[in-house]
Amino acid sequence: MSFYAELSPRFAAALAELSGRSIAVVGHARPDGDCIGSQVALARLLMSRGAEVVCVNADVVPRRLQFLVRGMTFLRTDDVLAAGRDYTSLFVDCADQRRVGERLSARFAQPFAVIDHHLSNVGYAQHNFIDTGSAATCEILAGLFIDNDWTIDAQTAQALYTGILTDTGQFRFNSTSQRTFLLAAELMARGAKPTEAGYELYERESMGKLHLLQRFLASLQLACDGRICIGRLPSGVFAETGTTAEDTEGLVDYARSIDGVDVGVLIEERPDGGVKASLRAKDPAYRLDLIAGQFNGGGHACAAGLNLATDAKDFQARLVAALSRQINQVDGARA
Amino acid sequence: MSFYAELSPRFAAALAELSGRSIAVVGHARPDGDCIGSQVALARLLMSRGAEVVCVNADVVPRRLQFLVRGMTFLRTDDVLAAGRDYTSLFVDCADQRRVGERLSARFAQPFAVIDHHLSNVGYAQHNFIDTGSAATCEILAGLFIDNDWTIDAQTAQALYTGILTDTGQFRFNSTSQRTFLLAAELMARGAKPTEAGYELYERESMGKLHLLQRFLASLQLACDGRICIGRLPSGVFAETGTTAEDTEGLVDYARSIDGVDVGVLIEERPDGGVKASLRAKDPAYRLDLIAGQFNGGGHACAAGLNLATDAKDFQARLVAALSRQINQVDGARA
Repeated sequence: MSFYAELSPRFAAALAELSGRSIAVVGHARPDGDCIGSQVALARLLMSRGAEVVCVNADVVPRRLQFLVRGMTFLRTDDVLAAGRDYTSLFVDCADQRRVGERLSARFAQPFAVIDHHLSNVGYAQHNFIDTGSAATCEILAGLFIDNDWTIDAQTAQALYTGILTDTGQFRFNSTSQRTFLLAAELMARGAKPTEAGYELYERESMGKLHLLQRFLASLQLACDGRICIGRLPSGVFAETGTTAEDTEGLVDYARSIDGVDVGVLIEERPDGGVKASLRAKDPAYRLDLIAGQFNGGGHACAAGLNLATDAKDFQARLVAALSRQINQVDGARA
Repeated sequence: MSFYAELSPRFAAALAELSGRSIAVVGHARPDGDCIGSQVALARLLMSRGAEVVCVNADVVPRRLQFLVRGMTFLRTDDVLAAGRDYTSLFVDCADQRRVGERLSARFAQPFAVIDHHLSNVGYAQHNFIDTGSAATCEILAGLFIDNDWTIDAQTAQALYTGILTDTGQFRFNSTSQRTFLLAAELMARGAKPTEAGYELYERESMGKLHLLQRFLASLQLACDGRICIGRLPSGVFAETGTTAEDTEGLVDYARSIDGVDVGVLIEERPDGGVKASLRAKDPAYRLDLIAGQFNGGGHACAAGLNLATDAKDFQARLVAALSRQINQVDGARA
């Protein structure tokens, strides 16, 4: 049986070209579990084949994903620019080349390959391994490794498992398929530990994170007859709660979790006056990737995001208007 | 491949004896997802083989599990006692025969069979199908059905999937095995819908519940050098947030989820001046059943509770003292 019949032989052929090269596995800014998991897994595979590999991100590996990166080299933008070395770059989990950050995008202007599952990925690399039916980039990598019969050690298995776990919302999002579960079983057989991943991800919160959640919950507002729920974090909230931007992960899911709400929204007011927004839908019919696209963002049908240099209050009104139009259109098409 | 090589042929032989009988599938009091899922699945299997089947519980099917029981007959204790019929009883997910409630336990004094995964089950039925290595009773049933090549319809698959999902804490508890994921994949192939289950279980919260969570989070305090985290709900909070005591489910897990915290506590101040407390530990070594026992309560090593006619502030001090002693003793024994 083959998980990715078309991609797997192409992936093997592309990797064969990398022999002897120095490689950078590049992930997106503000990396999540699927990004870090993909980077760790791909880097470890390449290292096991004798390559010299670094992982690169504009932002630091989040505290709660640190358990995945033991013994790995993760560089930040300045490190890579200072190094002045020649790297062959492989991008993972980046729908758009610019998601790695402006300076890294310029530094790695011609990616050798990209492995991704985002709907909006147009295939910007020399070799593109994109499967939008997969729940996570880690799902694709796990399938490619297993299809090619490459050894997966326990740390790699745990990294891939964690990426699948986080990008499916613990096997809940509608991207979760039979393949997702089969690969989870395969990864357990190779040393993935669901209990350890659960503890590291969900039982090591900071008090500040819970205070941030409290502030977010206190800010929740309904719009569009209760179909949209919006929470807002003012720019000072991180200092007040002793948290950082990475602690916002998961907050938007609370906005979506309310009965009757179709779309949950988190709006972060940035210190520079701009906004960052995260959108989550219960149903892919709402095509949040298209809504985010109207504001220079992107993502998936059920989970999208954007960054915009604009006033938060004005932005919220425009976003609610766009979402309301979309909800009404979907309702109309169903009527 | 066989999931339960020893149990499956025995199970088939036992079921063959049931031909033509009227059957009661009995679950425990205050039923959870694994209990209701097991009852629905076993009842539907027996019905598909021509049997007349009712499901029986002392308590009502919880609102969030109603999506599993469409078209099924669930009877309460009084209904069954009034019926005065002769039923062959099959117990599911009951470690102890008395867990079904006193009157039902007397009514069904000689169970024909029990299917269960609890460690403390001594095998009180004529036919005992107990596997303590399984994460859920639904995991056992799914394996038995598939091993025997019995048709699993979509509603049955969803019931089995939901039991596995809830009893593993979304595939997180250390009972989760490779078999758990393989069976999840098999159930998806037969119509289980993870997204629907996730939606019904976790995406139908009330705004009031989120406000209650917000109030709980705002009240969190650390004690015992950060090893204990306590949240308190004043007696007026339910009226203020439009919630009921049932909405406190899950709140205490937030207190436990903090890094460094070993025991999370929820203290509800009752309108009559008494208190209700819920205790949750990360490690069974803390034996919360014994701590709760000191205050006239009880439970399990990692999850216990109590009700006490006492002043909340005074109680909190006594509880923290008892927990601190226990934590220090466990630390000492480990040193």
